[in-house]
Amino acid sequence: MILSPDELDVANRYKLLVGGIVPRPIAWVSTQSRDGALNLAPYSFCCGVGSDPMSVLFCPANGSDGREKDSLVNADPANGVGEFVVNIVNETQARAMAVTAETLPSGESEWELAGLEPTPSAAVRPPRVTGAPVAYECVTHQIVRLNPGAPSGGNIVIGRVVRVYVLDDLINERNHIDPDKLAAVGRMAGVTYCRTDARFDLPWGRAALEGM
Amino acid sequence: MILSPDELDVANRYKLLVGGIVPRPIAWVSTQSRDGALNLAPYSFCCGVGSDPMSVLFCPANGSDGREKDSLVNADPANGVGEFVVNIVNETQARAMAVTAETLPSGESEWELAGLEPTPSAAVRPPRVTGAPVAYECVTHQIVRLNPGAPSGGNIVIGRVVRVYVLDDLINERNHIDPDKLAAVGRMAGVTYCRTDARFDLPWGRAALEGM
Repeated sequence: MILSPDELDVANRYKLLVGGIVPRPIAWVSTQSRDGALNLAPYSFCCGVGSDPMSVLFCPANGSDGREKDSLVNADPANGVGEFVVNIVNETQARAMAVTAETLPSGESEWELAGLEPTPSAAVRPPRVTGAPVAYECVTHQIVRLNPGAPSGGNIVIGRVVRVYVLDDLINERNHIDPDKLAAVGRMAGVTYCRTDARFDLPWGRAALEGM
Repeated sequence: MILSPDELDVANRYKLLVGGIVPRPIAWVSTQSRDGALNLAPYSFCCGVGSDPMSVLFCPANGSDGREKDSLVNADPANGVGEFVVNIVNETQARAMAVTAETLPSGESEWELAGLEPTPSAAVRPPRVTGAPVAYECVTHQIVRLNPGAPSGGNIVIGRVVRVYVLDDLINERNHIDPDKLAAVGRMAGVTYCRTDARFDLPWGRAALEGM
């Protein structure tokens, strides 16, 4: 079956993105407005970018009314403090993360609703989530708006990582993070998530030819 | 533990990205050079961007010599044909995908090495992978280079999706893709991957408070 986005509405295009591009990591993004209000929201359109500079990105699409999400406004140095923290979600905090997907009126806090506590970051103003096993403190490097002001228009927030928090027990002296202790949660479509304990290894490159 | 990227080399920064941001989907990217040579390589720094325009991205970092990867050269309309196809990797093709991570001399084909067959795309010149369950045909919309020419410098290739191929059996009339039939493979650190069959559901937003 070959589908053309031109013949689909945005909801159906979205379903094709979230159903096919799986499993997705979850950037649980903490931001702060200029007047100090804290925001926390999960984004599964996110990834690492590269190691020089060490950088990550997340994609907060516009709302159905074309408005930019608070995470984007706050992470934009033109409108907010221009910093953000990407927290990693483990199985223990998965339900609290899902709660923070709620769209709250201005002045109400996702942190409070989900019973989460902020821990001050080392180098940026937005706090990290207490209990999150890993957190990347970021200074916004660049924002790419694909369709400014459009309903569901895509945006890319690129951040330079200035500090990495890792829970001591998870990491060894060679900076390897233990996937079992991390117990990260991935995102599938709809209300579905996946654990990361169904793992297997494959050799890299030509070495993988053995066994084909 | 709080780590500062300034005090780490690129290899250790990379380990902190691939160990913490998990599980990652795999964009198995097919491109074509101006002289018709086909390239195929997996990238797990990738994601959907938004639904209007329907868009995706992947991040092919520069090599350790600062050179741009063939996938980037080919996807860049200034140097290549400016199109690419993101193929989704299932369990059946996971080993072939791992083979295509091999860096080959110019003129040698990852397709041939891995025993893969190209199927012509509907709307772009690079072919899709025969047997891949889902493929997003893309026209390059924009390329962001964070550190041009630098070893391991990060790049972001943003594509507008112009066609979506989905194997008929996987998708229902409401454009939901069946995760069991898809059997997508995710990327962890090192040589480790994960399946997507360890799934669970969580309600969205405030509804998730029940059960906390």
